[in-house]
Amino acid sequence: MRYAVLGTGIVGRTLAARLDALGHEVVVGTRDAAATRARTEPDRMGTAPYARWEAEHPRVRLASFAQAAAEAQVVLAALDGQSALTALHAAGADALAGKVLIDVSNPLDFSAGFPPRFDPVDTDSLGEQVQRAFPDARVVKSLNTVNCEVMVDPARIPGAHSIFVCGNDPEAKKSVSALLAEFGWPAAEIVDLGGIEAARGTEMLVRLWLTMMGRFGTADVNIRVVKAP
Amino acid sequence: MRYAVLGTGIVGRTLAARLDALGHEVVVGTRDAAATRARTEPDRMGTAPYARWEAEHPRVRLASFAQAAAEAQVVLAALDGQSALTALHAAGADALAGKVLIDVSNPLDFSAGFPPRFDPVDTDSLGEQVQRAFPDARVVKSLNTVNCEVMVDPARIPGAHSIFVCGNDPEAKKSVSALLAEFGWPAAEIVDLGGIEAARGTEMLVRLWLTMMGRFGTADVNIRVVKAP
Repeated sequence: MRYAVLGTGIVGRTLAARLDALGHEVVVGTRDAAATRARTEPDRMGTAPYARWEAEHPRVRLASFAQAAAEAQVVLAALDGQSALTALHAAGADALAGKVLIDVSNPLDFSAGFPPRFDPVDTDSLGEQVQRAFPDARVVKSLNTVNCEVMVDPARIPGAHSIFVCGNDPEAKKSVSALLAEFGWPAAEIVDLGGIEAARGTEMLVRLWLTMMGRFGTADVNIRVVKAP
Repeated sequence: MRYAVLGTGIVGRTLAARLDALGHEVVVGTRDAAATRARTEPDRMGTAPYARWEAEHPRVRLASFAQAAAEAQVVLAALDGQSALTALHAAGADALAGKVLIDVSNPLDFSAGFPPRFDPVDTDSLGEQVQRAFPDARVVKSLNTVNCEVMVDPARIPGAHSIFVCGNDPEAKKSVSALLAEFGWPAAEIVDLGGIEAARGTEMLVRLWLTMMGRFGTADVNIRVVKAP
Protein backbone atom coordinates (compact mmCIF):
# COMPACT_ATOMS: atom_id res chain seq x y z
CA MET A 1 0.00 0.00 0.00
CA ARG A 2 1.12 3.58 -0.67
CA TYR A 3 0.80 5.76 2.44
CA ALA A 4 1.20 9.49 2.94
CA VAL A 5 2.06 10.52 6.47
CA LEU A 6 1.37 14.24 6.89
CA GLY A 7 3.58 15.66 9.61
CA THR A 8 7.31 15.42 10.32
CA GLY A 9 7.14 15.42 14.12
CA ILE A 10 7.71 12.42 16.35
CA VAL A 11 4.25 10.98 15.64
CA GLY A 12 4.65 11.23 11.87
CA ARG A 13 8.15 9.76 11.96
CA THR A 14 7.13 6.86 14.20
CA LEU A 15 4.21 5.96 11.93
CA ALA A 16 6.32 6.38 8.77
CA ALA A 17 9.16 4.22 10.12
CA ARG A 18 6.77 1.44 11.08
CA LEU A 19 4.91 1.51 7.75
CA ASP A 20 8.25 1.43 5.96
CA ALA A 21 9.44 -1.51 8.08
CA LEU A 22 6.19 -3.33 7.21
CA GLY A 23 7.11 -3.02 3.52
CA HIS A 24 4.75 -0.23 2.54
CA GLU A 25 5.66 2.67 0.31
CA VAL A 26 5.70 5.84 2.44
CA VAL A 27 5.85 9.52 1.57
CA VAL A 28 6.07 12.00 4.43
CA GLY A 29 4.31 15.29 3.73
CA THR A 30 5.46 18.65 5.02
CA ARG A 31 4.76 22.31 4.31
CA ASP A 32 8.11 22.98 2.68
CA ALA A 33 10.45 20.01 2.14
CA ALA A 34 13.57 22.18 1.68
CA ALA A 35 12.88 24.05 4.93
CA THR A 36 12.21 20.78 6.79
CA ARG A 37 15.54 19.36 5.58
CA ALA A 38 17.41 22.58 6.36
CA ARG A 39 16.55 22.60 10.08
CA THR A 40 19.48 21.83 12.37
CA GLU A 41 17.88 22.37 15.79
CA PRO A 42 15.53 20.01 17.69
CA ASP A 43 11.83 20.96 17.43
CA ARG A 44 9.84 22.30 20.40
CA MET A 45 9.16 18.71 21.54
CA GLY A 46 12.91 18.02 21.57
CA THR A 47 12.76 15.85 18.45
CA ALA A 48 16.03 15.75 16.48
CA PRO A 49 16.22 17.48 13.08
CA TYR A 50 14.40 15.67 10.27
CA ALA A 51 17.52 15.37 8.10
CA ARG A 52 19.09 13.01 10.62
CA TRP A 53 15.99 10.80 10.72
CA GLU A 54 15.75 10.89 6.92
CA ALA A 55 19.31 9.58 6.61
CA GLU A 56 18.30 6.60 8.75
CA HIS A 57 15.15 5.93 6.69
CA PRO A 58 16.34 6.26 3.11
CA ARG A 59 13.29 4.58 1.55
CA VAL A 60 10.88 7.14 3.05
CA ARG A 61 10.50 10.09 0.70
CA LEU A 62 9.78 13.66 1.76
CA ALA A 63 7.41 15.81 -0.30
CA SER A 64 4.97 18.68 0.00
CA PHE A 65 1.62 17.99 1.66
CA ALA A 66 -0.02 18.20 -1.77
CA GLN A 67 2.38 15.86 -3.52
CA ALA A 68 2.41 13.32 -0.70
CA ALA A 69 -1.39 13.20 -0.54
CA ALA A 70 -1.78 13.06 -4.32
CA GLU A 71 0.47 10.00 -4.64
CA ALA A 72 -0.93 8.05 -1.70
CA GLN A 73 -3.75 5.52 -1.46
CA VAL A 74 -4.22 6.16 2.26
CA VAL A 75 -3.39 9.39 4.12
CA LEU A 76 -2.47 9.62 7.81
CA ALA A 77 -2.81 13.04 9.39
CA ALA A 78 -0.16 13.03 12.14
CA LEU A 79 -0.39 16.73 12.87
CA ASP A 80 -0.94 18.69 16.00
CA GLY A 81 -4.44 19.99 16.55
CA GLN A 82 -3.52 23.55 15.70
CA SER A 83 -2.15 22.77 12.23
CA ALA A 84 -4.17 19.75 11.11
CA LEU A 85 -6.77 21.59 9.04
CA THR A 86 -4.22 24.01 7.56
CA ALA A 87 -2.02 21.12 6.45
CA LEU A 88 -4.97 19.19 5.02
CA HIS A 89 -6.08 22.26 3.04
CA ALA A 90 -2.54 22.45 1.67
CA ALA A 91 -2.84 18.79 0.71
CA GLY A 92 -6.01 19.71 -1.12
CA ALA A 93 -9.55 18.37 -1.27
CA ASP A 94 -8.98 16.79 -4.69
CA ALA A 95 -5.99 14.78 -3.47
CA LEU A 96 -7.98 13.54 -0.47
CA ALA A 97 -11.25 12.79 -2.28
CA GLY A 98 -12.27 9.13 -2.06
CA LYS A 99 -9.26 8.24 0.07
CA VAL A 100 -9.13 6.81 3.55
CA LEU A 101 -7.89 9.66 5.76
CA ILE A 102 -6.77 8.53 9.21
CA ASP A 103 -6.85 11.36 11.71
CA VAL A 104 -4.57 10.57 14.66
CA SER A 105 -4.45 14.16 15.94
CA ASN A 106 -5.65 15.58 19.22
CA PRO A 107 -6.94 19.14 19.60
CA LEU A 108 -3.98 20.14 21.77
CA ASP A 109 -2.29 23.52 21.73
CA PHE A 110 1.44 23.19 22.45
CA SER A 111 2.14 26.85 21.70
CA ALA A 112 2.67 27.57 25.42
CA GLY A 113 4.79 24.46 25.97
CA PHE A 114 4.07 21.31 27.94
CA PRO A 115 1.54 20.37 29.25
CA PRO A 116 -0.49 21.46 26.24
CA ARG A 117 -3.68 23.49 26.46
CA PHE A 118 -6.89 21.80 25.54
CA ASP A 119 -10.32 23.31 24.95
CA PRO A 120 -12.80 20.48 24.43
CA VAL A 121 -16.47 20.91 23.55
CA ASP A 122 -19.18 18.30 23.60
CA THR A 123 -20.72 19.48 20.33
CA ASP A 124 -17.77 19.00 17.95
CA SER A 125 -14.37 17.38 17.57
CA LEU A 126 -11.31 17.69 15.39
CA GLY A 127 -12.32 14.47 13.64
CA GLU A 128 -15.68 15.95 12.68
CA GLN A 129 -14.07 19.21 11.58
CA VAL A 130 -11.79 17.27 9.24
CA GLN A 131 -14.72 15.29 7.83
CA ARG A 132 -16.79 18.47 7.33
CA ALA A 133 -13.89 20.29 5.66
CA PHE A 134 -13.25 17.33 3.31
CA PRO A 135 -16.64 15.71 2.72
CA ASP A 136 -15.27 13.43 -0.01
CA ALA A 137 -12.50 12.03 2.18
CA ARG A 138 -13.26 8.84 4.11
CA VAL A 139 -12.17 10.04 7.54
CA VAL A 140 -11.44 7.55 10.30
CA LYS A 141 -10.39 8.77 13.74
CA SER A 142 -8.01 6.35 15.38
CA LEU A 143 -4.78 5.99 17.36
CA ASN A 144 -5.13 9.42 19.01
CA THR A 145 -5.68 7.81 22.43
CA VAL A 146 -2.15 6.42 22.83
CA ASN A 147 1.45 7.53 22.56
CA CYS A 148 3.00 7.10 19.13
CA GLU A 149 5.32 4.30 20.27
CA VAL A 150 2.27 2.37 21.44
CA MET A 151 0.34 3.17 18.23
CA VAL A 152 2.73 1.06 16.18
CA ASP A 153 3.75 -1.47 18.86
CA PRO A 154 0.90 -2.16 21.30
CA ALA A 155 2.86 -5.03 22.90
CA ARG A 156 4.97 -2.37 24.67
CA ILE A 157 2.15 -2.45 27.22
CA PRO A 158 1.60 -5.97 28.55
CA GLY A 159 -1.92 -7.40 28.66
CA ALA A 160 -4.99 -6.59 26.62
CA HIS A 161 -5.76 -2.95 25.88
CA SER A 162 -7.97 -1.26 23.34
CA ILE A 163 -7.75 1.04 20.36
CA PHE A 164 -10.73 2.93 18.93
CA VAL A 165 -11.93 3.54 15.38
CA CYS A 166 -14.81 5.78 14.39
CA GLY A 167 -15.97 7.21 11.09
CA ASN A 168 -18.92 7.35 8.73
CA ASP A 169 -17.60 4.87 6.12
CA PRO A 170 -17.71 1.22 7.27
CA GLU A 171 -15.31 0.06 4.52
CA ALA A 172 -12.80 2.73 5.52
CA LYS A 173 -12.99 1.54 9.13
CA LYS A 174 -12.35 -2.03 7.93
CA SER A 175 -9.29 -0.89 6.04
CA VAL A 176 -7.98 1.03 9.08
CA SER A 177 -8.65 -1.99 11.29
CA ALA A 178 -6.51 -4.07 8.93
CA LEU A 179 -3.69 -1.53 9.30
CA LEU A 180 -4.09 -1.64 13.09
CA ALA A 181 -3.75 -5.42 12.93
CA GLU A 182 -0.50 -4.96 10.96
CA PHE A 183 0.70 -2.70 13.77
CA GLY A 184 -0.03 -5.53 16.22
CA TRP A 185 -3.46 -4.64 17.62
CA PRO A 186 -5.53 -7.80 18.25
CA ALA A 187 -8.88 -7.77 16.43
CA ALA A 188 -10.72 -8.24 19.73
CA GLU A 189 -9.23 -4.99 21.08
CA ILE A 190 -10.19 -2.79 18.11
CA VAL A 191 -13.32 -0.98 19.33
CA ASP A 192 -15.62 0.49 16.67
CA LEU A 193 -17.44 3.41 18.30
CA GLY A 194 -19.64 4.26 15.30
CA GLY A 195 -19.71 7.50 13.31
CA ILE A 196 -17.11 10.24 13.31
CA GLU A 197 -18.95 12.16 16.06
CA ALA A 198 -17.62 9.53 18.48
CA ALA A 199 -14.27 11.33 18.09
CA ARG A 200 -15.57 13.70 20.79
CA GLY A 201 -15.13 10.99 23.40
CA THR A 202 -11.75 9.73 22.21
CA GLU A 203 -10.37 13.28 21.93
CA MET A 204 -11.55 14.17 25.45
CA LEU A 205 -9.82 11.04 26.71
CA VAL A 206 -6.53 12.87 26.20
CA ARG A 207 -7.07 14.70 29.50
CA LEU A 208 -7.17 11.44 31.49
CA TRP A 209 -4.26 10.09 29.45
CA LEU A 210 -2.08 13.14 30.18
CA THR A 211 -2.95 12.89 33.89
CA MET A 212 -2.03 9.19 33.96
CA MET A 213 1.20 9.78 32.07
CA GLY A 214 2.21 12.41 34.63
CA ARG A 215 1.10 10.31 37.57
CA PHE A 216 2.68 7.03 36.47
CA GLY A 217 5.75 8.57 34.85
CA THR A 218 5.35 6.61 31.64
CA ALA A 219 3.73 7.12 28.25
CA ASP A 220 3.19 3.36 28.04
CA VAL A 221 -0.31 3.59 29.44
CA ASN A 222 -3.63 2.84 27.83
CA ILE A 223 -7.13 1.66 28.68
CA ARG A 224 -9.03 -1.50 27.90
CA VAL A 225 -12.74 -1.39 27.23
CA VAL A 226 -14.51 -4.00 29.36
CA LYS A 227 -18.22 -4.72 29.08
CA ALA A 228 -20.85 -7.22 29.98
CA PRO A 229 -21.42 -9.78 27.20
CA MET B 1 -19.91 3.86 59.70
CA ARG B 2 -22.58 6.57 59.43
CA TYR B 3 -23.07 7.73 55.84
CA ALA B 4 -25.07 10.57 54.36
CA VAL B 5 -26.07 10.12 50.74
CA LEU B 6 -27.12 13.47 49.31
CA GLY B 7 -29.54 12.95 46.43
CA THR B 8 -32.70 10.87 46.07
CA GLY B 9 -32.27 9.90 42.41
CA ILE B 10 -31.30 6.50 41.12
CA VAL B 11 -27.61 7.03 41.97
CA GLY B 12 -28.32 8.08 45.54
CA ARG B 13 -30.77 5.24 46.09
CA THR B 14 -28.41 2.62 44.66
CA LEU B 15 -25.56 3.80 46.90
CA ALA B 16 -27.83 4.05 49.94
CA ALA B 17 -29.28 0.57 49.43
CA ARG B 18 -25.84 -0.98 49.10
CA LEU B 19 -24.44 0.83 52.16
CA ASP B 20 -27.50 -0.28 54.12
CA ALA B 21 -27.07 -3.88 52.95
CA LEU B 22 -23.44 -3.72 54.07
CA GLY B 23 -24.64 -2.89 57.59
CA HIS B 24 -23.88 0.84 57.64
CA GLU B 25 -26.15 3.47 59.03
CA VAL B 26 -27.48 5.57 56.13
CA VAL B 27 -29.33 8.86 55.98
CA VAL B 28 -30.44 10.11 52.57
CA GLY B 29 -30.40 13.88 52.23
CA THR B 30 -32.88 15.87 50.16
CA ARG B 31 -33.96 19.48 49.81
CA ASP B 32 -37.35 18.97 51.41
CA ALA B 33 -38.12 15.56 52.89
CA ALA B 34 -41.87 16.10 52.94
CA ALA B 35 -41.89 17.12 49.27
CA THR B 36 -39.71 14.14 48.33
CA ARG B 37 -42.11 11.77 50.08
CA ALA B 38 -45.18 13.44 48.60
CA ARG B 39 -44.18 12.84 44.97
CA THR B 40 -46.29 10.25 43.17
CA GLU B 41 -44.88 10.50 39.63
CA PRO B 42 -41.59 9.04 38.29
CA ASP B 43 -38.76 11.59 38.05
CA ARG B 44 -37.37 12.83 34.70
CA MET B 45 -35.09 9.78 34.53
CA GLY B 46 -38.10 7.49 34.93
CA THR B 47 -37.21 6.56 38.50
CA ALA B 48 -40.19 5.54 40.63
CA PRO B 49 -41.37 7.84 43.45
CA TYR B 50 -39.13 7.88 46.51
CA ALA B 51 -41.89 6.78 48.88
CA ARG B 52 -42.08 3.40 47.20
CA TRP B 53 -38.31 2.89 47.49
CA GLU B 54 -38.39 4.09 51.11
CA ALA B 55 -40.98 1.45 52.00
CA GLU B 56 -38.60 -1.21 50.67
CA HIS B 57 -35.64 0.22 52.64
CA PRO B 58 -37.09 0.91 56.07
CA ARG B 59 -33.72 1.28 57.81
CA VAL B 60 -32.62 4.17 55.53
CA ARG B 61 -33.78 7.47 56.96
CA LEU B 62 -34.68 10.55 54.92
CA ALA B 63 -33.67 14.00 56.17
CA SER B 64 -32.79 17.48 54.96
CA PHE B 65 -29.39 17.94 53.32
CA ALA B 66 -28.25 19.80 56.47
CA GLN B 67 -29.45 17.18 58.93
CA ALA B 68 -28.12 14.25 56.90
CA ALA B 69 -24.68 15.84 56.54
CA ALA B 70 -24.53 16.91 60.19
CA GLU B 71 -25.17 13.37 61.44
CA ALA B 72 -22.83 11.57 59.07
CA GLN B 73 -19.17 10.63 59.36
CA VAL B 74 -18.81 10.38 55.57
CA VAL B 75 -20.88 12.25 52.98
CA LEU B 76 -21.54 11.03 49.43
CA ALA B 77 -22.69 13.67 46.96
CA ALA B 78 -24.85 11.73 44.50
CA LEU B 79 -26.26 14.78 42.80
CA ASP B 80 -26.46 15.85 39.22
CA GLY B 81 -23.90 18.38 38.10
CA GLN B 82 -26.39 21.22 38.01
CA SER B 83 -27.47 20.87 41.64
CA ALA B 84 -24.39 19.51 43.42
CA LEU B 85 -23.06 22.81 44.73
CA THR B 86 -26.51 24.11 45.66
CA ALA B 87 -27.24 20.97 47.65
CA LEU B 88 -23.86 21.05 49.36
CA HIS B 89 -24.38 24.69 50.35
CA ALA B 90 -27.72 23.61 51.84
CA ALA B 91 -25.85 20.91 53.76
CA GLY B 92 -23.56 23.63 55.02
CA ALA B 93 -19.81 24.12 55.30
CA ASP B 94 -19.85 23.44 59.06
CA ALA B 95 -21.50 20.05 58.62
CA LEU B 96 -18.97 19.09 55.95
CA ALA B 97 -15.83 20.42 57.68
CA GLY B 98 -13.26 17.73 58.39
CA LYS B 99 -15.40 15.02 56.80
CA VAL B 100 -14.64 12.82 53.84
CA LEU B 101 -16.88 14.07 51.02
CA ILE B 102 -17.13 11.67 48.11
CA ASP B 103 -18.17 13.45 44.93
CA VAL B 104 -19.64 10.94 42.47
CA SER B 105 -21.28 13.59 40.28
CA ASN B 106 -20.64 14.45 36.66
CA PRO B 107 -21.09 17.96 35.25
CA LEU B 108 -24.02 16.90 33.09
CA ASP B 109 -27.05 19.01 32.32
CA PHE B 110 -30.18 16.85 31.98
CA SER B 111 -32.53 19.84 31.75
CA ALA B 112 -33.06 19.20 28.01
CA GLY B 113 -33.48 15.44 28.48
CA PHE B 114 -31.29 12.57 27.35
CA PRO B 115 -28.51 12.58 26.19
CA PRO B 116 -27.42 15.23 28.67
CA ARG B 117 -25.49 18.36 27.71
CA PHE B 118 -21.93 18.63 28.83
CA ASP B 119 -19.59 21.60 28.74
CA PRO B 120 -16.15 20.46 29.88
CA VAL B 121 -13.13 22.70 30.36
CA ASP B 122 -9.53 21.70 30.83
CA THR B 123 -8.94 24.27 33.56
CA ASP B 124 -11.50 23.19 36.14
CA SER B 125 -13.82 20.39 37.18
CA LEU B 126 -16.82 19.85 39.39
CA GLY B 127 -14.59 18.04 41.88
CA GLU B 128 -12.33 21.08 42.18
CA GLN B 129 -15.31 23.42 42.45
CA VAL B 130 -16.62 21.38 45.37
CA GLN B 131 -13.21 21.41 47.08
CA ARG B 132 -12.86 25.18 46.57
CA ALA B 133 -16.35 25.85 47.86
CA PHE B 134 -15.75 23.69 50.96
CA PRO B 135 -12.04 24.00 51.73
CA ASP B 136 -12.42 22.18 55.07
CA ALA B 137 -14.08 19.15 53.53
CA ARG B 138 -11.84 16.27 52.50
CA VAL B 139 -13.11 15.87 48.94
CA VAL B 140 -12.46 12.67 47.01
CA LYS B 141 -13.72 12.31 43.46
CA SER B 142 -14.64 8.73 42.70
CA LEU B 143 -17.20 6.41 41.10
CA ASN B 144 -18.33 9.03 38.56
CA THR B 145 -16.90 7.00 35.68
CA VAL B 146 -19.37 4.11 35.91
CA ASN B 147 -23.10 3.50 36.07
CA CYS B 148 -24.52 3.37 39.61
CA GLU B 149 -25.23 -0.37 39.42
CA VAL B 150 -21.56 -0.95 38.61
CA MET B 151 -20.41 1.46 41.35
CA VAL B 152 -21.73 -0.84 44.05
CA ASP B 153 -21.32 -4.19 42.23
CA PRO B 154 -18.30 -4.15 39.89
CA ALA B 155 -18.66 -7.90 39.27
CA ARG B 156 -21.62 -7.07 36.98
CA ILE B 157 -18.89 -6.56 34.37
CA PRO B 158 -16.72 -9.66 34.01
CA GLY B 159 -12.94 -9.32 34.05
CA ALA B 160 -10.71 -6.68 35.60
CA HIS B 161 -11.73 -3.03 35.27
CA SER B 162 -10.69 0.10 37.11
CA ILE B 163 -12.13 2.76 39.37
CA PHE B 164 -10.42 6.10 40.03
CA VAL B 165 -9.88 8.12 43.19
CA CYS B 166 -8.39 11.59 43.36
CA GLY B 167 -8.21 14.22 46.05
CA ASN B 168 -5.83 16.32 48.10
CA ASP B 169 -6.05 14.30 51.34
CA PRO B 170 -4.24 10.94 51.24
CA GLU B 171 -6.03 9.61 54.34
CA ALA B 172 -9.40 10.49 52.83
CA LYS B 173 -8.44 8.58 49.67
CA LYS B 174 -7.50 5.58 51.82
CA SER B 175 -10.85 5.67 53.52
CA VAL B 176 -12.67 5.89 50.19
CA SER B 177 -10.57 3.03 48.82
CA ALA B 178 -11.69 0.93 51.80
CA LEU B 179 -15.31 1.71 50.94
CA LEU B 180 -14.66 0.79 47.29
CA ALA B 181 -13.25 -2.54 48.51
CA GLU B 182 -16.47 -3.10 50.48
CA PHE B 183 -18.39 -2.49 47.26
CA GLY B 184 -16.30 -5.21 45.62
CA TRP B 185 -13.55 -3.28 43.82
CA PRO B 186 -10.24 -5.20 43.92
CA ALA B 187 -7.41 -3.16 45.45
CA ALA B 188 -5.33 -3.62 42.28
CA GLU B 189 -8.03 -1.90 40.21
CA ILE B 190 -8.38 1.20 42.39
CA VAL B 191 -6.33 3.83 40.54
CA ASP B 192 -5.13 6.85 42.54
CA LEU B 193 -4.73 9.72 40.08
CA GLY B 194 -3.34 12.24 42.57
CA GLY B 195 -4.88 15.57 43.58
CA ILE B 196 -8.44 16.72 43.02
CA GLU B 197 -7.48 18.44 39.74
CA ALA B 198 -7.32 14.94 38.23
CA ALA B 199 -11.13 15.05 38.34
CA ARG B 200 -10.87 16.91 35.01
CA GLY B 201 -9.86 13.71 33.28
CA THR B 202 -12.38 11.44 34.97
CA GLU B 203 -15.22 13.89 34.38
CA MET B 204 -14.34 14.24 30.68
CA LEU B 205 -14.39 10.46 30.42
CA VAL B 206 -18.17 10.67 30.64
CA ARG B 207 -18.30 11.58 26.94
CA LEU B 208 -16.61 8.31 25.91
CA TRP B 209 -18.72 6.39 28.42
CA LEU B 210 -21.99 7.80 27.03
CA THR B 211 -20.85 6.98 23.49
CA MET B 212 -19.98 3.41 24.47
CA MET B 213 -23.25 2.95 26.35
CA GLY B 214 -25.16 4.04 23.25
CA ARG B 215 -23.04 1.96 20.90
CA PHE B 216 -23.03 -1.26 22.94
CA GLY B 217 -26.56 -0.89 24.29
CA THR B 218 -25.54 -1.49 27.88
CA ALA B 219 -24.56 0.58 30.89
CA ASP B 220 -22.40 -2.31 32.07
CA VAL B 221 -19.28 -0.90 30.43
CA ASN B 222 -16.10 0.42 31.97
CA ILE B 223 -12.40 0.75 31.25
CA ARG B 224 -9.36 -0.87 32.74
CA VAL B 225 -6.13 1.09 33.10
CA VAL B 226 -3.24 -0.90 31.64
CA LYS B 227 0.36 0.24 31.84
CA ALA B 228 3.90 -0.94 31.49
CA PRO B 229 5.37 -2.11 34.82
